[in-house]
Amino acid sequence: MMTLDEKFKAIGADNAPGQEGRQKIDNLDSMMRGEKIAGVLVDFSHGDVDAFAPTPGSDALWMQGYQKGAAQAYTQYRGSAEIAQGLAERLGAFTGRAIAADSELIITPGTQGALFLALGALVGADTKVAVIAPDYFANRKIVTYLGGIVVPIPLHYGKGQSQNGPDLEALERAFKEGVEVLVFSTPNNPTGVIYSKESINKIATLARQYDVSVIVDQLYSRLLYSGESYTHLRACESVPKNIITIMGPSKTESLSGFRLGVAFGSAALIERMERLQAIVSLRAAGYNQAVLSGWLDETPGWLQERIQKHEAIRDDLLEIFNTAGLITAKPQAGSYLFPKLPPLDVDITLFVRLLRHQAGVIVTPGSEFGPTTHDSVRLNFSQDHDNAVAAAKRIVSMVQRYKK
Amino acid sequence: MMTLDEKFKAIGADNAPGQEGRQKIDNLDSMMRGEKIAGVLVDFSHGDVDAFAPTPGSDALWMQGYQKGAAQAYTQYRGSAEIAQGLAERLGAFTGRAIAADSELIITPGTQGALFLALGALVGADTKVAVIAPDYFANRKIVTYLGGIVVPIPLHYGKGQSQNGPDLEALERAFKEGVEVLVFSTPNNPTGVIYSKESINKIATLARQYDVSVIVDQLYSRLLYSGESYTHLRACESVPKNIITIMGPSKTESLSGFRLGVAFGSAALIERMERLQAIVSLRAAGYNQAVLSGWLDETPGWLQERIQKHEAIRDDLLEIFNTAGLITAKPQAGSYLFPKLPPLDVDITLFVRLLRHQAGVIVTPGSEFGPTTHDSVRLNFSQDHDNAVAAAKRIVSMVQRYKK
Repeated sequence: MMTLDEKFKAIGADNAPGQEGRQKIDNLDSMMRGEKIAGVLVDFSHGDVDAFAPTPGSDALWMQGYQKGAAQAYTQYRGSAEIAQGLAERLGAFTGRAIAADSELIITPGTQGALFLALGALVGADTKVAVIAPDYFANRKIVTYLGGIVVPIPLHYGKGQSQNGPDLEALERAFKEGVEVLVFSTPNNPTGVIYSKESINKIATLARQYDVSVIVDQLYSRLLYSGESYTHLRACESVPKNIITIMGPSKTESLSGFRLGVAFGSAALIERMERLQAIVSLRAAGYNQAVLSGWLDETPGWLQERIQKHEAIRDDLLEIFNTAGLITAKPQAGSYLFPKLPPLDVDITLFVRLLRHQAGVIVTPGSEFGPTTHDSVRLNFSQDHDNAVAAAKRIVSMVQRYKK
Repeated sequence: MMTLDEKFKAIGADNAPGQEGRQKIDNLDSMMRGEKIAGVLVDFSHGDVDAFAPTPGSDALWMQGYQKGAAQAYTQYRGSAEIAQGLAERLGAFTGRAIAADSELIITPGTQGALFLALGALVGADTKVAVIAPDYFANRKIVTYLGGIVVPIPLHYGKGQSQNGPDLEALERAFKEGVEVLVFSTPNNPTGVIYSKESINKIATLARQYDVSVIVDQLYSRLLYSGESYTHLRACESVPKNIITIMGPSKTESLSGFRLGVAFGSAALIERMERLQAIVSLRAAGYNQAVLSGWLDETPGWLQERIQKHEAIRDDLLEIFNTAGLITAKPQAGSYLFPKLPPLDVDITLFVRLLRHQAGVIVTPGSEFGPTTHDSVRLNFSQDHDNAVAAAKRIVSMVQRYKK
């Protein structure tokens, strides 16, 4: 088993999205090819909540919570029973299977909190965990910190939509070889690929067959582009005994500054997650929980407009990257693009730092998302449209300057 | 090593403060001696932020943070650099030793979050951790969850102030026998005992001598009663290499609904805590962090008034318990009382449930705080003064009804 020292090396956060401000910039000037490229700084490491503002009325809901006083400040660890009731109804309707508010749902500090608690409830020393590659960067790190063993499962994402998805043969092999937990995101972060109905059904069947616990991160499942369809694992006819679905209002709804997430599923797991939350952070901030009462209950048309605007940015950026020959899967949902860069004369970490220093563009290196994607970068394109387009063009210019 | 099942049994939250609403009440009526005792429900499991309101202006600070938008929503994982700067200055002045804002401080989701991260940075499989008994209930649970081994160290608290404090001989023995980490709170939760200058100096010396890392939870160190003095471990002449101090505005300042805490100390540990925070919850809620800019910078006189009011409640409750013969240490700081009950005809868990059901008083059983204090109950007396006095009298009546 890994020592604590080794674990903390493995969960290094230097290149994690949002941490760029802490990187030391040494001599980047001397390594620059050509001059700086002017333009408004665009931080693609996360969505810009100034460009896409929090759901209207969120601050008023917060203030109502604050004014409610003690009853809102100190909820049970799994969150306010009243708010959980409304969430269970709306999330049950959204995902196609009922949720018992009292026993099958927990409110967490962000979906990050939900993910840590869900894995923390299932992964101990030497637990084998199937982790899709590429996928959300924290999955792998959490498993490693908890002492589990990461079993990577490839995701196909560059082949055209009908062939995209997880390698189900590799998954079944892993299940046969003792994997006890599967964690994945759909829509996939960082590629925007949605797992097809067939893939989801097969995962459900395999998980039941091999008694594997499944954690599905559906953070982006509301931001679904035209013509796409989405399958909720929890609504399959045959579902695994242990299944946790994770959602939250941090992305589509731009409520990340409130740190709110929700996990729902098997009561025994939710119970464990609550015990863990009691020692990790007690509860999601009480007043903030009040904002969840407006979630999945927005003004009619609000979501549609938000989707249309993101789809327009997606299309423009895709065209820029495709025209420049950067292979990029077409996101079916969510706001991530994951272009693959050609071979460069500098390593990807340095290129990403130069991109920030020289061209005012922040992206996350693909190495954060898995062992095989160091030649890609991730962009969260929930940004001001014009600024995002200009920044994408600067990325292309930079690639041309540094390519082999 | 413990299995996950065993760990989750050990971190059960059924009797934890604030979870009383989830307990099933079976047949309590049939077990009642005498009738119900009327009175306003008082929940001593935590402070009442309606009785002692959040620091004036906290909601306005929050709203400023919200209106700041993206810059406040997405801080670095260790928290807003600007807010950290002010905190480092004020906490450095308060604790008597300078803090480097950029490297020695992290903002966390509550002090609970800080405690989990600090222990998570230091405790792996089989790490021996000295845990004071009694002390904050989560210390023991976190160590257990992380796979560490709890080595209990007795705290003397019923003997009169000059003799109160940790058993330093037991502590040195534990250090000699391979303890690598010490975690404790001063003022102690649940007794209100402050560690004397001599104890703190001795702990610092021993920790250096045996190379033990120390986590000091100073959550209540501002709420200091008349005539008392407080020694900050981190300001000692000789301090251990690895030391983390934890504070937060949840108690004295009633800002618990914001879930804000701060840890400061050795840069290498803060770095580890940030890596862990990145996978546990990303960051303390961004908008909420803005409220910290008013902390330790309140209107002159505000703190003094808050202390006086708490001191008056403390004195009244102490007199009620002492008159009834319930042995209770006099809290030197903070808002906890920890009366010892005489032998009862019912076990303490049942008594606590009856107290809630029959007398409208919620307290936390002493068994949550250590292996030797199952005959005590903890009260957080940060409550409406009159209601608290009436509820304390109901506790005495109930003890009389159920005593052997």
